[in-house]
Amino acid sequence: MNRQIVLAARPEGMARLSDFKVVETATPALKEGEVLFRNILFSIDPYQRNLMGNGSSEWPTIGIGDPMGGPTVGIVEASNNAAFAVGDHVQSWSGWQTHAVSDGTDLRKLDPAAAPLSTALGPLGLTGFTAWYGTTKVHTFKPGGTFVVTGAAGAVGSTAAQLMKLRGHRVVGVAGGPDKIAFLENELGIDAAIDYKAVDFKEQVVHVLPDGIDAFFENVGGPIFPVLMEHFNPHAKMVVCGTISDCSDAELPQGTNYLPRLITLIHYRFVDIKAFATPYVMDTFPAFLAEMTPLVTNGKIKYREEFIDGFDKLPATLLTLFNGTHSGKKLIVKA
Amino acid sequence: MNRQIVLAARPEGMARLSDFKVVETATPALKEGEVLFRNILFSIDPYQRNLMGNGSSEWPTIGIGDPMGGPTVGIVEASNNAAFAVGDHVQSWSGWQTHAVSDGTDLRKLDPAAAPLSTALGPLGLTGFTAWYGTTKVHTFKPGGTFVVTGAAGAVGSTAAQLMKLRGHRVVGVAGGPDKIAFLENELGIDAAIDYKAVDFKEQVVHVLPDGIDAFFENVGGPIFPVLMEHFNPHAKMVVCGTISDCSDAELPQGTNYLPRLITLIHYRFVDIKAFATPYVMDTFPAFLAEMTPLVTNGKIKYREEFIDGFDKLPATLLTLFNGTHSGKKLIVKA
Repeated sequence: MNRQIVLAARPEGMARLSDFKVVETATPALKEGEVLFRNILFSIDPYQRNLMGNGSSEWPTIGIGDPMGGPTVGIVEASNNAAFAVGDHVQSWSGWQTHAVSDGTDLRKLDPAAAPLSTALGPLGLTGFTAWYGTTKVHTFKPGGTFVVTGAAGAVGSTAAQLMKLRGHRVVGVAGGPDKIAFLENELGIDAAIDYKAVDFKEQVVHVLPDGIDAFFENVGGPIFPVLMEHFNPHAKMVVCGTISDCSDAELPQGTNYLPRLITLIHYRFVDIKAFATPYVMDTFPAFLAEMTPLVTNGKIKYREEFIDGFDKLPATLLTLFNGTHSGKKLIVKA
Repeated sequence: MNRQIVLAARPEGMARLSDFKVVETATPALKEGEVLFRNILFSIDPYQRNLMGNGSSEWPTIGIGDPMGGPTVGIVEASNNAAFAVGDHVQSWSGWQTHAVSDGTDLRKLDPAAAPLSTALGPLGLTGFTAWYGTTKVHTFKPGGTFVVTGAAGAVGSTAAQLMKLRGHRVVGVAGGPDKIAFLENELGIDAAIDYKAVDFKEQVVHVLPDGIDAFFENVGGPIFPVLMEHFNPHAKMVVCGTISDCSDAELPQGTNYLPRLITLIHYRFVDIKAFATPYVMDTFPAFLAEMTPLVTNGKIKYREEFIDGFDKLPATLLTLFNGTHSGKKLIVKA
């Protein structure tokens, strides 16, 4: 039997456990050229909230009753495709189901001896690709300037921070809480870290950014950004990679309207803001793997991961990303 | 004697008449290579507020006691420079003074037979250059899409609208009040106009933008933009040219904070936002003149101008740009 976790309802605002449902279906029979695999590792990522549907998003969404989406690592259990043998490891996009069938075109064969399998969901998967693409292909950042990344202790942010450090930028990471700050300062070796949960957050920003911001990688959104944006230098370049604090918000916040201020900063400091979406740029994935694989296997790019046992834990694990309890480690569910 | 209007005080928020002062100084003696000219036409433009100093701007500002800045047209009265003869017409950057001396490097000789002298301050001057650069060099806009320009009845906006129409875009102009809308619809021949002062503004936006916005030229800022930004198409491109409604604001507005919404729209629709500043790109001025001069002299680009008599009217004329009474015509003070 194929156990699936499907979308039961479209959430408004924060996702809930009741938005998911477990169903069991027969494992489909293999046609010519097809591969059957069993998923053993499931990636948990913030953008999965968007796959569930979002009033503020034009993202392609999962249909009600369809399995929740996301990358996985699986083991081939049967094959009618000469390119895949039983026992091969594959990275797939088959989402939250224990088994899946593919014609092989969307599978990436993995070598468990070359790098741990979990890296195919982390620094050598979509997570790393997001960090790499966002720091490589969206803008041309001049080395030597100050690069600020929010969500810096997270899977994408920490990879972006390390990549930019390797490329000769002064890297400042923003994260919340002493554990994440210690990780940034002691383990990642970036130049400075700012704790947005600290009472002296604004003073830290001023202290750590005497020369302003030349490049900005936005993972978070929310009330941190209006404080940071004041430090944009002329011709600063910003990449919007994610807005985790905003993507569950059904209503806009009330208070000071910072939109005119951002437009004014763009106007007077010639800030260039862009975004990107990995589904549209997967043609650069081989170039990413070529650059990143040695960096990851040689330990130049460090990563943290946390494994959660049990396929049925997938929904609850996803929700931890949005309730502020998440450690920042890449979450991987094992089945 | 050289009569000057100098900056007497730095305004906070809206500029006032008391921020200016008239002074008289001796006309400087000419050195070798220098030209003395008498200014006869003075350009009035929104960015001049920024030259006075602005809490939200890093713009180079006029020193207290120095003549207010801005382009002028003058007549050469004495010359120690072989390139300029007495009686020649020149466009200069000499600002609010009746007479000025230059070594000629910042002067552009004008041919009054080729185009009216006032066009050197309007469609063939910095105004037209701003519209041309902002629609030509900042982004690459694909013809065929919908181009929206705010402040569309103004000097920069109307030129941008006509240029984009000539280049094969569907052009939608946003302006305030029936007179400006009639000008846009009847005289400029653009595809549609939206009256932001009308009670059915939001309905007009929906009605006129069934296919969304592909390119956006922002001249205005303020509460119009959050309504329009909801109609950004994927990969929309936005140029921030000006924020006339915001540039006098000392305090940010209170109410709904639209900043997270803009970041979300950038994120999910891959909106690319850029700005530019003409002082840094004057090397493209000859290319601008080559393209625009025949368009203006052949009537393909229409322009409206309003002349105000009297050098001492300069401050009061500038202030009309910001109090909502301005017709949208290019204002030129004659001395």
